[in-house]
Amino acid sequence: MKQMIEDIEVRAREEIFINIHPIQAAGRLTPEAMKAVIAYGDGYSTCDWCGKPFRLDKIQRPPIIDFHRELARFVGMDQARVVPGARRGFQAVVSSVIEKGDSVIVSALAHYSEFLAVEDAGGIVREVPLNEKKVVTGENTAHKIEEVEKETGKLPKLILIDHFDYMLGNEHDIHGIAKVAKEYGIPFLANCAYSIGVMPINGKEIGADFLVGSGHKSFASPAPSGIVATTDEWADKVFRTTQMVGDVTRRKFGIKEVEMMGCTLMGANLIAMMASFPRIRERVKHWDDEVKKINYFINEFNKIEGNKVLSEMPRKHTLTKVDTTGSFDKIARTHKRRGFFLSDELKKRRIVGEFVGATKQWKLNTYGLTGDQIKYLAQAFQDIAYKYGINVS
Amino acid sequence: MKQMIEDIEVRAREEIFINIHPIQAAGRLTPEAMKAVIAYGDGYSTCDWCGKPFRLDKIQRPPIIDFHRELARFVGMDQARVVPGARRGFQAVVSSVIEKGDSVIVSALAHYSEFLAVEDAGGIVREVPLNEKKVVTGENTAHKIEEVEKETGKLPKLILIDHFDYMLGNEHDIHGIAKVAKEYGIPFLANCAYSIGVMPINGKEIGADFLVGSGHKSFASPAPSGIVATTDEWADKVFRTTQMVGDVTRRKFGIKEVEMMGCTLMGANLIAMMASFPRIRERVKHWDDEVKKINYFINEFNKIEGNKVLSEMPRKHTLTKVDTTGSFDKIARTHKRRGFFLSDELKKRRIVGEFVGATKQWKLNTYGLTGDQIKYLAQAFQDIAYKYGINVS
Repeated sequence: MKQMIEDIEVRAREEIFINIHPIQAAGRLTPEAMKAVIAYGDGYSTCDWCGKPFRLDKIQRPPIIDFHRELARFVGMDQARVVPGARRGFQAVVSSVIEKGDSVIVSALAHYSEFLAVEDAGGIVREVPLNEKKVVTGENTAHKIEEVEKETGKLPKLILIDHFDYMLGNEHDIHGIAKVAKEYGIPFLANCAYSIGVMPINGKEIGADFLVGSGHKSFASPAPSGIVATTDEWADKVFRTTQMVGDVTRRKFGIKEVEMMGCTLMGANLIAMMASFPRIRERVKHWDDEVKKINYFINEFNKIEGNKVLSEMPRKHTLTKVDTTGSFDKIARTHKRRGFFLSDELKKRRIVGEFVGATKQWKLNTYGLTGDQIKYLAQAFQDIAYKYGINVS
Repeated sequence: MKQMIEDIEVRAREEIFINIHPIQAAGRLTPEAMKAVIAYGDGYSTCDWCGKPFRLDKIQRPPIIDFHRELARFVGMDQARVVPGARRGFQAVVSSVIEKGDSVIVSALAHYSEFLAVEDAGGIVREVPLNEKKVVTGENTAHKIEEVEKETGKLPKLILIDHFDYMLGNEHDIHGIAKVAKEYGIPFLANCAYSIGVMPINGKEIGADFLVGSGHKSFASPAPSGIVATTDEWADKVFRTTQMVGDVTRRKFGIKEVEMMGCTLMGANLIAMMASFPRIRERVKHWDDEVKKINYFINEFNKIEGNKVLSEMPRKHTLTKVDTTGSFDKIARTHKRRGFFLSDELKKRRIVGEFVGATKQWKLNTYGLTGDQIKYLAQAFQDIAYKYGINVS
């Protein structure tokens, strides 16, 4: 028998490296979450004390019911549920709100999982173009709505726009979009996968009908985990309970929510979210420090001749896309290790998480690095530039 | 700030008790899975070396691609994917195969998540009645198909029947049902949530078009985790890749599978499944020992006057429903702790997992207990009976 586990290496990237991986930074477990995962690793660990009415979010021990209430309050909405990843939140909302053939407004920087959620429900995505700053605005959203209505004779059924996109980490005008959504009477889902858990978010202040967040992306939790939150107005629709009746047995499972598939995120992943929650509440208050640090880093990074930043400036998010075609890529063209030379140099300096081998356009994320680590990181890139004869101003 | 984590107790039920919880037994982590969870707890831990074509099941380091291939072989199917729980497997298959208004044949003992998957896709469940042994047969399935066709003028679009049901743990005739499914040309999903991972299962031998399994129920893995497997014939449909094109950007995300929402079970849960896999392969060979142990236990349990077993006899599965209305419930009626007296007595003996307070009909599962533990468990129930003056023959 092949012992496949021998091939699973022990992962220690977060322990022995500075990790600038674009999607991993804010999903790194807190020590409390790690302890929770160990205690609650076994399959149905959250079900020890499950009793009437037999639904995950109603369990009192451990205090899952309290967590759900606090989570809704934390994101400024009336009700919240946990789901296996933000994408399962999109799926639940889209499947509830649209019918086959309906249009859904998304961003020209929409994540692929938003495309899939719409496709799965039989809808059609209609992208809002970016403005000159590569940002989705309320104005452009309104234009797109008009365009769709003119073309199809029907208003779109849902607006699904990212607060910060996955590609550039730019901030999109979700407040303006929410206003437009209200004007047209179209529900608005703000995809906060890159914001809930790292910065303060209040869904009602935004004016969103739905918020979706990601546990493994921004809430210091294991994958898959996520959040879907809504208002009392929409809860009956998205969290509707089953109406199906067995024709022979007359069985009904009244309290189970259709789009949640009943219980959603049982086990260690949920308990880890709960365990990380106190630190999450604290850390969102210090988002401005994180923004200062990325801007410091980018300022240093741009001193390397030929380096460019493709994301909006100044940075409002730690996720940032850079372009080193005019610097490190020039070296890669003649280096025997090609683009891997940069990864080699970074790894020597205990830095990982860049896209291995890429020296043109690539992404990084400095979330959670200390001031010293940020300085070290900036210095490391300058040292590498210096070593290969690239000017540093 | 309320430190909610203070309210999360450290869970040690599997370490310091004999746990007979009906759904927890086979989802208990292996030591290898626990180590994997610790190493891969951080959010997107599986994405370190993700490269082209950027899909979870294609990742080579850790060897996720190999695991998928071996997993398909292990269940005797052509292709397999991991999903966040068996229910997400039902959802994917049902959503792919049926249209609004279509009928889906399920068991009169169908799990609620099967109802929800059908309801979510706009279908209608039609239950196959049980025979006198509380078993779903091919014959009854054929009758039900005929009934549905007569009533609706259309054949059902899918047959979704549990191999072992969640209520009694009875074995249903999935071989006979597969034959009937073939005769009528209706695809058949065998729900093996209680069998894949504890006993040998071969989908092609069964004649199933789809198999669904559960990681947290029967594969020694954290929740949520699950398996959906199919034949090459059906893979193109259920694992179809996205066709959606952005109208502004012309973006396409060609390799992402719609029903999987792209990547499915990133992170610790998947690595835990991989880490448990070698032991799973080994343990399914010893299912007959598990069956012997439950039958030994039930034989001893039935020596207590008034005890009954509601599941089929002899037991073919470790999940078993018992009726103690004629024994322990008689005590509960006058005991100051009511039904909790039984839980108190069991807990004193380091046994947990019965439904706390229940003394009429309740379920237990002896999966994974050693011979000594089984003897101890049987003795414990007899001791309690003796203590309260119930005859033990």
